[in-house]
Amino acid sequence: MINPQPLIGFMTDFGWRDPYVGIVRAVIERIGRGRVRVVDITHDVPAFSIVAGAYVLYTSYKYFPRGTVFLVVVDPGVGTERKAVAIATRNYYFVGPDNGVLYPAASSDGIERAHVIDNEAVFLKPVSRSFHGRDVFAPAATLLALGTPITSLGHELPRDELVKLSLRKPCRGEEVEAEAVYIDHFGNVALGLEEECIEKLCSKGGSRVEVITSTGRFEAKCLPVFSAASPGELVFYTNSLGFPELAINLGSAAEKLGVGISDKLVIKPKTR
Amino acid sequence: MINPQPLIGFMTDFGWRDPYVGIVRAVIERIGRGRVRVVDITHDVPAFSIVAGAYVLYTSYKYFPRGTVFLVVVDPGVGTERKAVAIATRNYYFVGPDNGVLYPAASSDGIERAHVIDNEAVFLKPVSRSFHGRDVFAPAATLLALGTPITSLGHELPRDELVKLSLRKPCRGEEVEAEAVYIDHFGNVALGLEEECIEKLCSKGGSRVEVITSTGRFEAKCLPVFSAASPGELVFYTNSLGFPELAINLGSAAEKLGVGISDKLVIKPKTR
Amino acid sequence: MINPQPLIGFMTDFGWRDPYVGIVRAVIERIGRGRVRVVDITHDVPAFSIVAGAYVLYTSYKYFPRGTVFLVVVDPGVGTERKAVAIATRNYYFVGPDNGVLYPAASSDGIERAHVIDNEAVFLKPVSRSFHGRDVFAPAATLLALGTPITSLGHELPRDELVKLSLRKPCRGEEVEAEAVYIDHFGNVALGLEEECIEKLCSKGGSRVEVITSTGRFEAKCLPVFSAASPGELVFYTNSLGFPELAINLGSAAEKLGVGISDKLVIKPKTR
Repeated sequence: MINPQPLIGFMTDFGWRDPYVGIVRAVIERIGRGRVRVVDITHDVPAFSIVAGAYVLYTSYKYFPRGTVFLVVVDPGVGTERKAVAIATRNYYFVGPDNGVLYPAASSDGIERAHVIDNEAVFLKPVSRSFHGRDVFAPAATLLALGTPITSLGHELPRDELVKLSLRKPCRGEEVEAEAVYIDHFGNVALGLEEECIEKLCSKGGSRVEVITSTGRFEAKCLPVFSAASPGELVFYTNSLGFPELAINLGSAAEKLGVGISDKLVIKPKTR
Repeated sequence: MINPQPLIGFMTDFGWRDPYVGIVRAVIERIGRGRVRVVDITHDVPAFSIVAGAYVLYTSYKYFPRGTVFLVVVDPGVGTERKAVAIATRNYYFVGPDNGVLYPAASSDGIERAHVIDNEAVFLKPVSRSFHGRDVFAPAATLLALGTPITSLGHELPRDELVKLSLRKPCRGEEVEAEAVYIDHFGNVALGLEEECIEKLCSKGGSRVEVITSTGRFEAKCLPVFSAASPGELVFYTNSLGFPELAINLGSAAEKLGVGISDKLVIKPKTR
Repeated sequence: MINPQPLIGFMTDFGWRDPYVGIVRAVIERIGRGRVRVVDITHDVPAFSIVAGAYVLYTSYKYFPRGTVFLVVVDPGVGTERKAVAIATRNYYFVGPDNGVLYPAASSDGIERAHVIDNEAVFLKPVSRSFHGRDVFAPAATLLALGTPITSLGHELPRDELVKLSLRKPCRGEEVEAEAVYIDHFGNVALGLEEECIEKLCSKGGSRVEVITSTGRFEAKCLPVFSAASPGELVFYTNSLGFPELAINLGSAAEKLGVGISDKLVIKPKTR
């Protein structure tokens, strides 16, 4: 397994407003004794959205240095039976709830082993029922970043028992149902499709696709770059993170299409 | 007195949008010469709300390493006669305006001594009339974090001359008037009561309490954990920071109850 | 030229919500190998507003330690022909798009030399068409912070070929047209005028000025400090960053005046 860096990539749905992010940072400082650096990925993952969290992590992790430990708390099931896990991959470590949020990133990097975090010596005590970010995940991630072996965090979990989640669906260039996996602050709608779906769908429709949502039918223009779009135009292109995306130049595609995260859209080549 | 750490826990009501937080961080870097680390607690304390600031600090400080210096700027009285103070407690240092915001945290840790920050050699000059976070508090906190003795910041202030503030009210299990001391981004309403008030109020009312606000009367169910609530149900429980709280699963209790920070609510055991 | 510090002052219009800021921080960590610290100035510069970005940078930079490298991404022209530049000034380094956003800060500190960032060895590859913050600016700023000479980033650009931008207009104490260069989260409206304009305009009008916007005519009271204002009163004073500003105590001047960033206002001494 790769040597960890004393660096934590930190991502939650806590928001920046309340003290929760600061409290977790305090715990990292306390256990890390000033030797562990933290980079915030974001703390504005839409509340409880596992798919949006998985998207943010998957599109971010590979820019971090090898050995980075990711601390991810998007945890609608806190206090229930969901497991707390630590995963070692080819180049990184991932710590968080076993609900799928870690899976697309970890599996794309190559999972080497996974452990349930159940060694009570790791925990900040008393362990609360609702703030495992502070009491379970932060201590585990900080210990990993300091060089504690993953095997000491708890029992091994066979890799194929991890909760799976797939962010990308393949397509054959015909009608496809796509999930809105992320909506950014401009209202751009990232779709859970393979990157090559754009080419496949666009080549058959004269560079136009039809988009069907629960609120209507829309036409989008296929473009290589977003900046080539005219103001107000709905465009279909590959975003800077490698996902097919629907966007409106100087407007909100999510609003126009009436979609939110996890909603399904149908995309098909435009026929006359 | 405890040896300080080169670590500042930083909290304000400046918001993240404007450059004020960044400017204070710049001053810390300039005086600290790269030797002082900073952990943001939050910068979204509701503007000018001393009670909310006191709550955030009180519920956060104890997770930080011993020796942390807290830099707190929630300062509606900047430019008036309110004092700038530095407080040494059993395990920490607190720097900020003497308006009560530091008091619950400092007094719960045990105040050892307090000093007015009036030694002009400490200040970033010229001292503005409205940005003491930059010109007075940040230099003082950074000097403390670097090991400058608190006695060199200015004259000693007798402990009992500090402006006092109490976050928690006791109760005897009968009708009690509680203050909304914090409202988080979910709309959960933390109440300024002793933790044991929950047990006292709930044991007499068959696990239900009545909540009276200026907009109406409501019934809340007493629960050990929030996650046990049904969607839409108003619940009364102890939050993860140790305060009695009113919340609605998948909804905003603050909105339903029509309360804001500092509003008063009456809580009493539910009688038939 | 001044020796750089391993310190980056980081400012964008990316917002805190999406993972873009975190991804750039990851790239800085990867190239900086833990030796480069980062201070966020803000990431909430209004989207694509070059003048607001220039204001934030100009009012912040001088609080940073000498040798700080500023990484600024407010870049409406990404993917077009605008240049990526690095500028060495008397005390600092500035990296960002050549659209004027760096100019007021850099020229006020004293520009020593400028280079186009066109050495492909610097880039994170493949260079995207829309995320130069990650692929071009972050690598360049991190290399500078590590001590790489600015000359190795690309061809020299004569100083007078940089895109210019002026934040401050002089005035003679008579009617002047001022631009709203920044609006903070309270709704205070900073004006692109020389600091002494306040004195000039106020001394002729009995301590009152008239403010004309597209929505009406308003009267503002000249005050030395904002905190001296009565609630609801429109005041004209010098803000803590040295700019003439219109504000309402406990209210939003921007809303009352009906102005947004880049709007023009006419200010003149009040005559009976």
